[in-house]
Amino acid sequence: VSAELIELAKAGDTRSIGRLLSLIEDSPSSVPALAASGHARVIGITGAPGVGKSTLTTALIGAYRSLDLQVAVIAVDPTSPFSGGALLGDRIRMQEYALDQKVFIRSMATRGHLGGLAAAVPHVARALDAVGFDVVLIETVGVGQSEVEIAAHADTTLVLLAPGMGDGIQAAKAGLLEIGDIYVINKADREGAEVTAKEIRQAMALGPARQPEDWRQRVLLTSADRGQGIDEVVAALGEHRVWLEESGTLHARRRRRTVMEIEQLALSVLHEKVSDRIDVAADRVESGEMDPYQAARALVDGLPGLG
Amino acid sequence: VSAELIELAKAGDTRSIGRLLSLIEDSPSSVPALAASGHARVIGITGAPGVGKSTLTTALIGAYRSLDLQVAVIAVDPTSPFSGGALLGDRIRMQEYALDQKVFIRSMATRGHLGGLAAAVPHVARALDAVGFDVVLIETVGVGQSEVEIAAHADTTLVLLAPGMGDGIQAAKAGLLEIGDIYVINKADREGAEVTAKEIRQAMALGPARQPEDWRQRVLLTSADRGQGIDEVVAALGEHRVWLEESGTLHARRRRRTVMEIEQLALSVLHEKVSDRIDVAADRVESGEMDPYQAARALVDGLPGLG
Repeated sequence: VSAELIELAKAGDTRSIGRLLSLIEDSPSSVPALAASGHARVIGITGAPGVGKSTLTTALIGAYRSLDLQVAVIAVDPTSPFSGGALLGDRIRMQEYALDQKVFIRSMATRGHLGGLAAAVPHVARALDAVGFDVVLIETVGVGQSEVEIAAHADTTLVLLAPGMGDGIQAAKAGLLEIGDIYVINKADREGAEVTAKEIRQAMALGPARQPEDWRQRVLLTSADRGQGIDEVVAALGEHRVWLEESGTLHARRRRRTVMEIEQLALSVLHEKVSDRIDVAADRVESGEMDPYQAARALVDGLPGLG
Repeated sequence: VSAELIELAKAGDTRSIGRLLSLIEDSPSSVPALAASGHARVIGITGAPGVGKSTLTTALIGAYRSLDLQVAVIAVDPTSPFSGGALLGDRIRMQEYALDQKVFIRSMATRGHLGGLAAAVPHVARALDAVGFDVVLIETVGVGQSEVEIAAHADTTLVLLAPGMGDGIQAAKAGLLEIGDIYVINKADREGAEVTAKEIRQAMALGPARQPEDWRQRVLLTSADRGQGIDEVVAALGEHRVWLEESGTLHARRRRRTVMEIEQLALSVLHEKVSDRIDVAADRVESGEMDPYQAARALVDGLPGLG
């Protein structure tokens, strides 16, 4: 990654930003040393397929653009029109930002080799912050685990639900109530939206007692395709950002992310280093000669005895 | 882990099996060296909340018990009655196996610190194989990522769908058609089951061309709560096992799992070793002094310069 490329990306050149991100995605060793400005709001948007994540994302792009903010979208959702799984209507809706130089949309493959969110997501989010985006939206699909992951990668996690697509009780069971900062019931014009919102609020009330200084999770209603409720979502996202800064949580969340990012890369470094010995180690584990932990220690320590 | 505990577990003592698994879950360093007999069929069952995974799992326990096979269930699904999120009806249904010494049910927390499926799942599955279970059912919830993970941990992956809970096209988009060996449309008495099955078959036909020696994915219909279609599922699982053995795929899948298991433990060994230096590394990355990859290399190599 050349200094020139980074400068061009910082100047807002879309092709240079694209090229920078491709380098980062292709090889972990080309992740540049970029001082994270910490300026960007990194917002995770998650929910099951069909709840309207792309529609909400598009509406948020519009809302932030009308505030003259630069917006980047990382789409790691295989069902998202941003990542190629478009229905025609969604594609048309997004066209309006295709020529907007201050909107950058990046789709990423879901399947990192370690499982989970694409391994490059944290590097890409850091780079988008460093080159000057004001808002980075990370859109991902999921019930359960991928939502937990997005919560680890974002400053603010927005969980999107729809009436009848998994009600409030189901959400509570799936562990969703522990990871969202803001809950949005989309398709609020449909029957059952208020009931779902009420169930979510009730389930939250049953959760652990909150301290006065804790963030109070919001439950909002939108009809994203009609633009209804979007201003309230933007306001709640702003309030959460203020809370993150004032409580010191922002710094703590970002530190945790940096540590995860380094650890993940450390695993790939380790992987390179032991790749020629891993099969011998696996043989010994499968035969019952060694337990898997002994094999792991032997690999890390580079002890003799593994060929 | 004492040799005596392992002997008792192999003799079928339920409390000893439970104690062995607890030790494995609590600390990776107590994973015993157990020669995987390779005898157990490890079957992953996955699908969105509400499609009937627990009901199907219960029906499969019954079917395998009537063949006098020993069955273990690992439930990593927060919505599963096996893992504590029970609806009363599900709990009652399972009671029939509560006193059956040849059925062992273990629920595990979903949240591994590395994200993804609980980190101990592969160790637990190996242990259950080694102590003599004939069938190990791993039940997990999810759309997207956790299904990819379960496919990596199981010999055979069964994807459960229900009419109206996400149709065939949605499943195709979510990448589901790449990971299942067998697809089961449950609640087949409901409207739309045949349509969902047809959509899945059509989407498969559009997939990459198959070689004659490849496994032909099955699409089956069940009403698990009435016991309908279960025999066909058991038959398809048996056919897949035969194919796995004859094609040599079983050995390849298990090798990949052993490698993943060792790598995951290697990461935790690495974690221990660098924990006192990770904060310094994170400081340098956040200030832009080092890129994350340099920091990772420095940690792994134990190079001086990181305090």
